[in-house]
Amino acid sequence: MSRPVVAVAMRPALRPHLFDAAAEARLALLAAPAGGQGALVVQDFADPRAAAALAEAEVLVSGWDCPRLDGAALARMPRLAAVLHSGGSVKHHVTDAVWARGLAVSSAVADNAVPVAEYTLAMIITAAKRLPAMERAFRADRNGHDWQHWSEAFGPVGNHRRVIGVVGLSRVGRRVVEMLRVLDATVLVHDPYVPEAAIRELGALPAGLDELVVAADVVTLHAPATPATRHQMDRRRLGLMRDGSTLINTARGSLVDTAALADELRRGRLHAVLDVTDPDPLPAGSELFGLPNLTLTPHVAGSIGGELRRLGDFVLDELQRWAAGRELLGRVLPETLPSIA
Amino acid sequence: MSRPVVAVAMRPALRPHLFDAAAEARLALLAAPAGGQGALVVQDFADPRAAAALAEAEVLVSGWDCPRLDGAALARMPRLAAVLHSGGSVKHHVTDAVWARGLAVSSAVADNAVPVAEYTLAMIITAAKRLPAMERAFRADRNGHDWQHWSEAFGPVGNHRRVIGVVGLSRVGRRVVEMLRVLDATVLVHDPYVPEAAIRELGALPAGLDELVVAADVVTLHAPATPATRHQMDRRRLGLMRDGSTLINTARGSLVDTAALADELRRGRLHAVLDVTDPDPLPAGSELFGLPNLTLTPHVAGSIGGELRRLGDFVLDELQRWAAGRELLGRVLPETLPSIA
Repeated sequence: MSRPVVAVAMRPALRPHLFDAAAEARLALLAAPAGGQGALVVQDFADPRAAAALAEAEVLVSGWDCPRLDGAALARMPRLAAVLHSGGSVKHHVTDAVWARGLAVSSAVADNAVPVAEYTLAMIITAAKRLPAMERAFRADRNGHDWQHWSEAFGPVGNHRRVIGVVGLSRVGRRVVEMLRVLDATVLVHDPYVPEAAIRELGALPAGLDELVVAADVVTLHAPATPATRHQMDRRRLGLMRDGSTLINTARGSLVDTAALADELRRGRLHAVLDVTDPDPLPAGSELFGLPNLTLTPHVAGSIGGELRRLGDFVLDELQRWAAGRELLGRVLPETLPSIA
Repeated sequence: MSRPVVAVAMRPALRPHLFDAAAEARLALLAAPAGGQGALVVQDFADPRAAAALAEAEVLVSGWDCPRLDGAALARMPRLAAVLHSGGSVKHHVTDAVWARGLAVSSAVADNAVPVAEYTLAMIITAAKRLPAMERAFRADRNGHDWQHWSEAFGPVGNHRRVIGVVGLSRVGRRVVEMLRVLDATVLVHDPYVPEAAIRELGALPAGLDELVVAADVVTLHAPATPATRHQMDRRRLGLMRDGSTLINTARGSLVDTAALADELRRGRLHAVLDVTDPDPLPAGSELFGLPNLTLTPHVAGSIGGELRRLGDFVLDELQRWAAGRELLGRVLPETLPSIA
């Protein structure tokens, strides 16, 4: 097992969130710091203070705000063989030059999917039960009533016999489908890139997107942001959603026509849970802040706080596999990029 | 397979929530209505209009607000052999006279546990991630910031490496432990009635109650309300909870010393999710309505709305098993009553 020379490139504030003292100690055992600079975090590949480290680096551990790995950057890293990314998507920093050099690329996309799937599961349960609305009503009236009042005022709440529509069998979408086995709902999946048999194997039913939207009590979006998915939930398709159903978006704001959704929320016909918006972050003047029937969180479904340690642990595991000559678990192949986030 | 004579006793408004038209049709195929009165719902066993039906009834399908089955009531039902309850606890209507007569008693407690466990899972995820507080902060500041802000403002949020403490391995508690397998948290269980090996078999670790409370980031209560569990979470034990941890109560209000919890919430040291309170329902003047760091729902974690169909389906399945001479799946035995809800 070799001890590769490693450089780290990300927003410097990320490093202590990814690696606590024990993880830093493990990194020091697994790898030699490039240029002998143990705690160096590269923010600019043209920075002369990073030149010696980059000249030696065999593995780049990247993270959010890693600068672009274009031809000029790669020219400074003649020994580089692998880019191990502690985040999900590699599209912000991995360019065609990386693929042309034949570098190995790995991403923590599977581990980064964990908190997003957890958030989605929690929101599916609370949305199907209409818990936020019940809590608001309880606090406004200060009347606990009993089961009959809530059953009659809110209708057939809960997950029993419900239909959950999962759009996009991405890493997050797949994990959501797996987690939904704990409910007794019917799960529909739409993904044009996945064979129907693979969807059935997960215990879900394949569906066309319109079909899914018409049938589902909750629609949750997990498609990548591509030209083909822009405004996937446009005015027509939002109009197909059932009265009283809920749209959840934890993927990318561009998947939804925000103005059309706002109309449906204002009218009270639909409910929504948005962790991502278009634009993202949301301007302070956005009409979304004033809309009813909307749970609105600030792009936090992904890894934050203690969840960043999970990504740090993954990238160290990946580094250990690389050093041992084993296969990378999070290997990203250029031919899959058009269909992933 | 015989066709037993069935009477129904519950709050009349419950029946259409339990049984839709298809379920009523199935009931009519499975059983003969007592006294020939198909849609009769008995609210008072002394009501002369019910006398003929009760005289014939072999099976009583009971539900919430079923009157007490005491000696006088049972004397009106000489042919009664089984009480199939569509709710959870049978303690409100099943008296010693029922056991003395040797009647078979069954309850939908396992199916009634489903929504409570779902609610708990959703609240564990959202509490560990501090989502309600983040949503409030986002709406107040209208500033989405980025991952660094939320990670630094809210600390190590998320379920990674978290410890969840489950107090009481009731039907709900057991199901919560099973559902928690979808998270990568460590689960501790305290239940003095359950052997440690059975807890380990579920993938959890047995713990003393103080030990659990000291170690857990989230404590969720699923113990029955008995004299022994009154104020189980008293001032001393609440004081043992970790700074920033969350207490979830979906069981019974009496398990918690409300005044002591209110002090901790006001001080901002703890967070809480209360679906049940002491008293329950909560008086409009309760201080709980004004407390910060509290998610407060009106005793709706159990079956309401569409979740009542699940209970109706169960009781029909149970009736079908009884008619076929098969074992009842929800059989309640008098010797287990002291340790269950």
